[in-house]
Amino acid sequence: MELLEQRILKEGFALPGNVLKVDSFINQQIDPSLSFKMGEEFAAQFAGIQIDRVLTIEASGIAIGLTTAYKLGVPLVFARKKKSILMMEEAYATEITSFTKQETNTVSVLKKFLPAGQNILIIDDFLANGESALGLARLVEMAGSTVAGIGIAIEKSFQPGQERIKAAGYKLCSLARIKSLENCTIEFMD
Amino acid sequence: MELLEQRILKEGFALPGNVLKVDSFINQQIDPSLSFKMGEEFAAQFAGIQIDRVLTIEASGIAIGLTTAYKLGVPLVFARKKKSILMMEEAYATEITSFTKQETNTVSVLKKFLPAGQNILIIDDFLANGESALGLARLVEMAGSTVAGIGIAIEKSFQPGQERIKAAGYKLCSLARIKSLENCTIEFMD
Repeated sequence: MELLEQRILKEGFALPGNVLKVDSFINQQIDPSLSFKMGEEFAAQFAGIQIDRVLTIEASGIAIGLTTAYKLGVPLVFARKKKSILMMEEAYATEITSFTKQETNTVSVLKKFLPAGQNILIIDDFLANGESALGLARLVEMAGSTVAGIGIAIEKSFQPGQERIKAAGYKLCSLARIKSLENCTIEFMD
Repeated sequence: MELLEQRILKEGFALPGNVLKVDSFINQQIDPSLSFKMGEEFAAQFAGIQIDRVLTIEASGIAIGLTTAYKLGVPLVFARKKKSILMMEEAYATEITSFTKQETNTVSVLKKFLPAGQNILIIDDFLANGESALGLARLVEMAGSTVAGIGIAIEKSFQPGQERIKAAGYKLCSLARIKSLENCTIEFMD
């Protein structure tokens, strides 16, 4: 998505350790107009596939999850993160480890918001090692539903997440694909 | 806002302890269409007032903050919650205590996303004791900016938040105003 790539080049910062900061338009300050265009693009990319709801994870996934769900005319559900391991009768829960924050969270969704037999589109802001997206996919499958696809705003294509998602057989759509952040320089895939 | 009140009556649950659960359309599952209509209503209520950005708090404020900011054509910024007290050079931070969760969080926004001299609209999902809204207002004032107004989805009018906000001189707009949750029955203000 050209618009997103241009914005990443203009406002993103590549930091040592393969970290890309985009907190001026995705992660703490959000550009609503860009969020809308990203939602439209996800909806277009997954057009023709039955989607019953969108699943994302707090907090940065909510804006693009909302605009995608709005465009598709389906509900949005967001998984919650807790640092402590929380076993709840009424929730599906799984552990994920964040690449950027180097911390493990228990991620959960109330069972009533993840019914069985649905086609669920997973939306998230970043794809690095695939922990977050694959964790959300585990929740969907625990619920007896199907992952209709995984939509990612920014894929770090040099990290293993995209391979892991494809190996698991999920349809992946990334709006911006980063080839390298070496020497703190942002380089996109062709 | 009639549409919101009807939805609260249809899907909301009043629980003992003056708690209102609306997690099927605002708090974990989100109805994007309703979020949009709420954003349009906030924008209409604050029409004619200069607003430079919208400030909300993760996670449940993000959807309605986004739709409001979209309608107003301004950026959205969301404050982050941390359980630990975190002093950061580069952030404005304040403590707030959640009525529902009975826990105190340090709420912070990076200084670069809260510049001085702006008019900031605060948006949040619930108003009970006013801790969250007044905490966000403190962040705005620490930044040398002005609170243009406070927009709340659901005000529990029998709790002190709305009085505290008015006493502080802020313009308050609540889309649904709850008079009572006694006997687990939802009653709106006239």
